[in-house]
Amino acid sequence: MDNCIFCKIIAGDIPSMRVYEDEDCIAILDINPAAPGHTLVIPKKHYQDLFEMDEAMAGKLMMVAQEIGKRQMERLGAPGVNLVQNNGASAGQTVLHFHLHVIPRYENDGAMVLWDPTQPTMDDLKAICDKLA
Amino acid sequence: MDNCIFCKIIAGDIPSMRVYEDEDCIAILDINPAAPGHTLVIPKKHYQDLFEMDEAMAGKLMMVAQEIGKRQMERLGAPGVNLVQNNGASAGQTVLHFHLHVIPRYENDGAMVLWDPTQPTMDDLKAICDKLA
Repeated sequence: MDNCIFCKIIAGDIPSMRVYEDEDCIAILDINPAAPGHTLVIPKKHYQDLFEMDEAMAGKLMMVAQEIGKRQMERLGAPGVNLVQNNGASAGQTVLHFHLHVIPRYENDGAMVLWDPTQPTMDDLKAICDKLA
Repeated sequence: MDNCIFCKIIAGDIPSMRVYEDEDCIAILDINPAAPGHTLVIPKKHYQDLFEMDEAMAGKLMMVAQEIGKRQMERLGAPGVNLVQNNGASAGQTVLHFHLHVIPRYENDGAMVLWDPTQPTMDDLKAICDKLA
């Protein structure tokens, strides 16, 4: 894809910090990490987002994320790992090429505030459930 | 697994708001959602976390997340979707049974602060890359 920064990184036209590569994907450091070691797993084929992803590639990328997470724990001493994958501008997706964030988490690092839990009523939940089911 | 709240929900011993079920997994509403429609995709088999997950089940769960995300967009009007999967207490994992958060995102909902990006030097990044590669 022209004008896709991740396609250019995969092609080697833009430099990156590669920590892993195989026939299907690369894994590179995020240059603005949430925490040291924050890595992006990126398929070589251009999928825009989750909604273009297929089952075989999704399974493969999750296993690469597992391997990267293991290295973050063993080599960087991170006791935890978050996976995050964003779809759409309102969800924070800035590059329109599917990527899986693998974020090592350290004790009390304050690196990431996931969300403020809300307290809907059972009726509110039931109404949503009826729409989604 | 005894004492696993998700195993009890899967068995029907604890009630839940089910939006999807097949032979491998269920999807239920998070009762403390980040945003309305926040859903958890949960394998019926007890995997503690990503590090016990296998490729076939991971691919399957991602495709169910895709379906739930489509419904959130089409039926709830969410223009974006986050996937989040937490491993370890320091990463915010509170139930030790693998689950994939599928979080619908609305314009300027302020539902989730992913992280504050940091600005490491190239030398810092290179040192981390050498450890992880």
